[in-house]
Amino acid sequence: MKQRFFEPSLYHTRRNKLAQALQDGLIVFPSNEAAGMNYRDNTYPYRQDSSFLYFCGIDRPGLFLFIDSQSGESILAGDESTMDDVVWTGPVESLHELSEHAGLDRVITLAEAKNWISNLIERNIRIHYLPVYRGDQAFRLAALLDTGAEAISGNASIPLIEAVVSLREIKEEPEIKELSDAINISRQMHITMMKSACAGMTEAEVMARVRAECLKHDLDIAYPIILTVNGQTLHNHAYHNILEHGQLLLGDFGSESSMHYAGDITRTIPVSRHFTPLQKDIYSLVLQTLSSSTAAIREGIRYLDVHLQAARIIAGGLKDLGFLNGNPDDLVAEGVHALFFPHGLGHALGLDVHDMENLGEKYTGYESGLERSTQFGLRSLRMAKTLKAGMVLTVEPGIYFIPELVALWKKNHSYPGLVNYDRIERNLPFGGIRIEDNVLVTPDRAQVLGDPIPKEIADIEQYRELAYS
Amino acid sequence: MKQRFFEPSLYHTRRNKLAQALQDGLIVFPSNEAAGMNYRDNTYPYRQDSSFLYFCGIDRPGLFLFIDSQSGESILAGDESTMDDVVWTGPVESLHELSEHAGLDRVITLAEAKNWISNLIERNIRIHYLPVYRGDQAFRLAALLDTGAEAISGNASIPLIEAVVSLREIKEEPEIKELSDAINISRQMHITMMKSACAGMTEAEVMARVRAECLKHDLDIAYPIILTVNGQTLHNHAYHNILEHGQLLLGDFGSESSMHYAGDITRTIPVSRHFTPLQKDIYSLVLQTLSSSTAAIREGIRYLDVHLQAARIIAGGLKDLGFLNGNPDDLVAEGVHALFFPHGLGHALGLDVHDMENLGEKYTGYESGLERSTQFGLRSLRMAKTLKAGMVLTVEPGIYFIPELVALWKKNHSYPGLVNYDRIERNLPFGGIRIEDNVLVTPDRAQVLGDPIPKEIADIEQYRELAYS
Repeated sequence: MKQRFFEPSLYHTRRNKLAQALQDGLIVFPSNEAAGMNYRDNTYPYRQDSSFLYFCGIDRPGLFLFIDSQSGESILAGDESTMDDVVWTGPVESLHELSEHAGLDRVITLAEAKNWISNLIERNIRIHYLPVYRGDQAFRLAALLDTGAEAISGNASIPLIEAVVSLREIKEEPEIKELSDAINISRQMHITMMKSACAGMTEAEVMARVRAECLKHDLDIAYPIILTVNGQTLHNHAYHNILEHGQLLLGDFGSESSMHYAGDITRTIPVSRHFTPLQKDIYSLVLQTLSSSTAAIREGIRYLDVHLQAARIIAGGLKDLGFLNGNPDDLVAEGVHALFFPHGLGHALGLDVHDMENLGEKYTGYESGLERSTQFGLRSLRMAKTLKAGMVLTVEPGIYFIPELVALWKKNHSYPGLVNYDRIERNLPFGGIRIEDNVLVTPDRAQVLGDPIPKEIADIEQYRELAYS
Repeated sequence: MKQRFFEPSLYHTRRNKLAQALQDGLIVFPSNEAAGMNYRDNTYPYRQDSSFLYFCGIDRPGLFLFIDSQSGESILAGDESTMDDVVWTGPVESLHELSEHAGLDRVITLAEAKNWISNLIERNIRIHYLPVYRGDQAFRLAALLDTGAEAISGNASIPLIEAVVSLREIKEEPEIKELSDAINISRQMHITMMKSACAGMTEAEVMARVRAECLKHDLDIAYPIILTVNGQTLHNHAYHNILEHGQLLLGDFGSESSMHYAGDITRTIPVSRHFTPLQKDIYSLVLQTLSSSTAAIREGIRYLDVHLQAARIIAGGLKDLGFLNGNPDDLVAEGVHALFFPHGLGHALGLDVHDMENLGEKYTGYESGLERSTQFGLRSLRMAKTLKAGMVLTVEPGIYFIPELVALWKKNHSYPGLVNYDRIERNLPFGGIRIEDNVLVTPDRAQVLGDPIPKEIADIEQYRELAYS
């Protein structure tokens, strides 16, 4: 199958902008290799590196993309497939064909690339590359640059990181379209959960149906599916529990688009047809936090401030419900809300579900004069910086009753006057509620991407009727 | 969820046998780490290293298993999880609990392990480790052993490889049970394909249902699913084609058991209710090859000889069908059958679908005095050596019409008297047929593992009726 590309001019423009931003040296993007699961050739599903995709769109291993930052010349390095490859993995487009789709200037072999790079290194030309996140990338770069693999990790180019972040963080029109496609498939996955989860099923049975919903479109998940009655465990990837009436079921999952843009959606539903009164109270509070946060998003606002506003709404609501005491501003300043909301309000979304996380959240989520907090809860905020039009973000407030954390705080006598431990303990186990949308930042507001995914209590309860009918 | 273990004594015995085989130095098994997909923390499904599982069963990253080959003492090195881990990934069993399940002697921290190893290295104690297949393993071992990551690859211990192979290649009773479980889930996946694939669906739609069949049991595939109308492409992982009447659909997929033993099953079905006459002829020939091969398997026979017998049956059958000319023995000696049967008859099966492939097929599939062939086709035979009781193997003959290979041989005037190119070309596209069972070698025969999976033409056509009813 021929892979999809954007217009060649789009990649060409991106590479030119990158070259102009660097102005010095050679930029190298290694493709991702297939990753061995339990031996080299039993591979995980292939996933190209996102920056490689961003700058040339070619979805194949064994390659390097070179951009000369002075001339802007862009070169693809790789070896054409052999007859053995054809027998084992089928006929594929040639590198020359791929390079045309990507608007590249020329193709060289890996041996040619190696010689060429040796020559540049001898001439003291600076070689820019991004931080690596797989050991195999370090080995490939080390072999290319004739250095030790350990030397690769510490020597990523800061100017390259900054230039890539400033390009990738602003989404172009065709990217918004891809993100919306990913979100719409993710929407189908969530509606499948709402329509099919029933008491007595295992989490795995629901998860299998949800996963099949993207697989049948020849797409796969953008990140490991969270689908659990233990929503209080933030990154829970176990699926063995049997759904029981009265529980909450939290689903945090999304599909990739066919060009590998990510959807990242969370919905929380009752296992029964209806929410219990307390579930309804907490759900309404999370939903209100989501709406208020979304309403606050626009170009020029710091996402840290939207996060803190969300934390105050949650703290205020939990006070009204009798779980916390005191002034919401003070509760948030002290970090007391983090007992219930220990994560950040959201993060950038794009080719990566945590977009560009491998480049360092210092660059993708923070900015000059804005240091990451060390406070429990706030330190998990991935995106804090001043928003620009064209950014795509997740907005995902949540409230969790984490028994182990409650027990620890109580044992440590943390904020005894501010936390009503007895009332919390009487309501354990509760689970967790998170509701998450994906939004585009515009000059004056946030635009929720994709078709609406049910989140009002009445709408969810309507789908839940279908599950039991 | 608590993971499953075999009895502690089983792991204990395995480790003692290994220590006795080595008699010198310290054996180190690094656990597999979570593998980053498009950044470090967006991980592929976690898969523990199979030798690590074999010798202690612990299904968790961040660990080292040490076995002192002189005393037999077995030590688990790792760090206990923190409250942050509990918040993000939930409560887990402690390392001490895990080490009890595995019958280990004691647990030390990673820092203690590092000091201890430094000390051993100073004393010139030999450190044995297996070949690595992920860059990250090399980095972990290099950090532990205080050496360069590049130095790790070439220095795997041959005595350790040989000792591990001689243990792992003979399956114990509880392992046979696990393999049978994996095969029985794989069977359900194949029956799902047979009952649901219809003309007009995409391969992806069928693949999604097949995958859901193991996912719903909280299990995952043992290797990437092959489910294709282009069965002639041996490792085809594309799913975009629409099934058309008259085509063949080849499915090669299997589930892992909950303890990570692999099922590896192939079935080929007609997209229509019935096979065409030519499909029936070729299918019957492949099925006859499978039966004859299975009948030939017993302790003491070389699998190479079973492979060559299979090749002769295929060559003879294709001669009868008018695709080849000449004596089957000569056709096989020349390698002409490989135009249609370019792969090996099978491989070892266990914790890995190609069991222990990372240890080197020289050790797992060949033996002293038996060199791997360089001939096209025969060189792809993974398992050639003398069979022992307790080995588990795949038996997977196939016949493929590979247009690119036929065109190449014709262009090169390869065996013009022996290959009827015209007759082949008149029957293109045909696709490919492979039928695969998993068998246990016993002293006097092969025992097909798991419940029977339909493979007779009549049985398959009966399931195909269900798909269209």
